[in-house]
Amino acid sequence: MPVTDQPKPDFNPALWVWGSEDSAPRVLHTMIRVKEWEPALRFYIDGLGMKMLDRFTVEVRRTDLMFIGFGDYSQGGVIELVRLWDDEGEPTHGTGYGHVAIGAPDVVGAVAKLEAMGAEIVTPPTVLIPGGPHVAFVKDFNGYMVELIQTSRM
Amino acid sequence: MPVTDQPKPDFNPALWVWGSEDSAPRVLHTMIRVKEWEPALRFYIDGLGMKMLDRFTVEVRRTDLMFIGFGDYSQGGVIELVRLWDDEGEPTHGTGYGHVAIGAPDVVGAVAKLEAMGAEIVTPPTVLIPGGPHVAFVKDFNGYMVELIQTSRM
Repeated sequence: MPVTDQPKPDFNPALWVWGSEDSAPRVLHTMIRVKEWEPALRFYIDGLGMKMLDRFTVEVRRTDLMFIGFGDYSQGGVIELVRLWDDEGEPTHGTGYGHVAIGAPDVVGAVAKLEAMGAEIVTPPTVLIPGGPHVAFVKDFNGYMVELIQTSRM
Repeated sequence: MPVTDQPKPDFNPALWVWGSEDSAPRVLHTMIRVKEWEPALRFYIDGLGMKMLDRFTVEVRRTDLMFIGFGDYSQGGVIELVRLWDDEGEPTHGTGYGHVAIGAPDVVGAVAKLEAMGAEIVTPPTVLIPGGPHVAFVKDFNGYMVELIQTSRM
């Protein structure tokens, strides 16, 4: 496949948020589309404690991007929120995409907090496989499912 | 929380794949549903070089799980593939979930390989934001979009 005859682009390190030195592939982020930022910020930042890492506008795609994560980009596990300028409705949910799973040292506490904020608790904290960690399923305020997995032994 | 005589649930370290010592939350994995393993294994393992980390069966949910990743669980960025025993059709795709993004040291090479395997190249390698890395969008063999982001400076 022809790549491009373009000259090499200028290098802007601020846009190489995932780094520019990797010699091995890795999963960087998961993208979900939202109509408005507010419900997502309330769930992931106020509710779960993630931080906003960056915001970008991609004019050629008429799109705004926001990256949120618990750490910085190097730790992987970032979520990209995308808002389309010309979006006319709420994103729809198929049956294929399932969820993002978030490890929490206190799943019971996290679920209680999200429930108090008005989130729908689909599966309260439970042990699905005997001997395994507690897990819970919660819908974020845009209707995306989030799994919470206990990561501290109780 | 009062100390009680209640026995703790059995602990099976093999099922605490994300560890049991975390004091801070983190994103662990992204789940997508597939009807058959084969197309996913061909794309993510043969095509992109991921490894199978684990397989589980959750009888109470009549579900088989498979975790795939480039590294081990501690590196985050794992993909969970889920196959439902009673699934009657292909998973459907809404407009909300976008993609998983994978950092690749050679996006052009990765896209060429996937294209030779029959994958649909939705956006050939291109620079979306001047000064940023090359990105490409490819559909996996189950119809899920995957973004490839250049992580070595060319």
